[in-house]
Amino acid sequence: MPTLVLLRHGQSQWNLENRFTGWWDVDLTEAGIAEARGAGRLLKEKGFEFDRCFTSVQTRAIRTLHLVLYELGSLWLPTTKDWRLNERHYGGLTGLNKAETIAKVGAEQVKIWRRSFDIPPPPLQADSPYCALRDDRRYAGVTVPDSESLKDTIARVLPYFDANIAPALRAGERVMVAAHGNSLRALEKQLSGISDADIIGLEIPTGQPIVYDLDETLAVRDRYYLSER
Amino acid sequence: MPTLVLLRHGQSQWNLENRFTGWWDVDLTEAGIAEARGAGRLLKEKGFEFDRCFTSVQTRAIRTLHLVLYELGSLWLPTTKDWRLNERHYGGLTGLNKAETIAKVGAEQVKIWRRSFDIPPPPLQADSPYCALRDDRRYAGVTVPDSESLKDTIARVLPYFDANIAPALRAGERVMVAAHGNSLRALEKQLSGISDADIIGLEIPTGQPIVYDLDETLAVRDRYYLSER
Repeated sequence: MPTLVLLRHGQSQWNLENRFTGWWDVDLTEAGIAEARGAGRLLKEKGFEFDRCFTSVQTRAIRTLHLVLYELGSLWLPTTKDWRLNERHYGGLTGLNKAETIAKVGAEQVKIWRRSFDIPPPPLQADSPYCALRDDRRYAGVTVPDSESLKDTIARVLPYFDANIAPALRAGERVMVAAHGNSLRALEKQLSGISDADIIGLEIPTGQPIVYDLDETLAVRDRYYLSER
Repeated sequence: MPTLVLLRHGQSQWNLENRFTGWWDVDLTEAGIAEARGAGRLLKEKGFEFDRCFTSVQTRAIRTLHLVLYELGSLWLPTTKDWRLNERHYGGLTGLNKAETIAKVGAEQVKIWRRSFDIPPPPLQADSPYCALRDDRRYAGVTVPDSESLKDTIARVLPYFDANIAPALRAGERVMVAAHGNSLRALEKQLSGISDADIIGLEIPTGQPIVYDLDETLAVRDRYYLSER
């Protein structure tokens, strides 16, 4: 039976500091490392095994996956990394914390970005240090966006899912995807049929495996947080 | 210019105990972890960057690679894991230390195995706990050998190199292979044109990057231990 486990990376340094991170490559904190190990131990205790893994090209998700696979004794699993599983690009908000953002653009505007499905934040400004992303070797050949709405994020995650992850699931494989709040929202929206209006309200906690038991058409038979079973 | 960096995994628990390991999946020691990190820092300090990585399906090599890539800030690199880069399978010697082996088969016989190119150790005995390798999920679809000579090991490493690693190098990529004493001997034998008689005498130290600067035909322009430059 196809099984898909979604795992948001453990706490990153900028999760801790409550800063918008997006595509900036921020590492896990010690607490985030512990969360990842805990997720791995929980999966092992519950008897989970996998056939294939997918992750983004961002360190916090890759390390989370590696820490989980180490606990499972499964570092040998084939693993594909792709930028289309990256976090949403927060554009000009990258690096700002909530208070700084409100000071910069006002509380009303922040509320609009936080609640809207299709309004992207302003683009990175030309003098932003985060423009260095465009020259990052890992994005060679990729048009790095200036900013993404949740809708934009979904528009790159789902074709990747359809072309790469769904075929493995249809073949009956057990797949783990270690990724980010918004790239995982894209997958949850698709699998669970969540509306545009509701998806932004779905909070995905760090380091908590979400299990989808699927049938061969990828219809959802069950969806649960592993820590609650 | 194509560059190939070969890296033997850091010290494993059975390296420390001087036991034949082969395909048994023994983890790194703390010293081995430190060696791997040191290799990563050295590569970073010397300005190395990579386009692609290859490793075996054995934890000690995969973890070594991950620790190196973390230091390089390059966990995102595409990485392929394949059993054909595994250590030589030591058959009935698996798990024995040198003293136990001499007690079991005699010093003369040990000398023959240690020095011979094409004489495999005796096969795993049917009651050996190491026969569990045959049921290991990572070898599904693979005929796990009962024992391998160095010649046998080379006979599976080189076709893999030719089909998967050489094309990347010919395309000008910079490739790292994190693997094992004998699978790396296979690559050194091929690239450096070492004879059957001499290859067994080539010792490959743990955690020391070996750099091959190649031309586009994969002829060797230079070969050196990075720690010596």
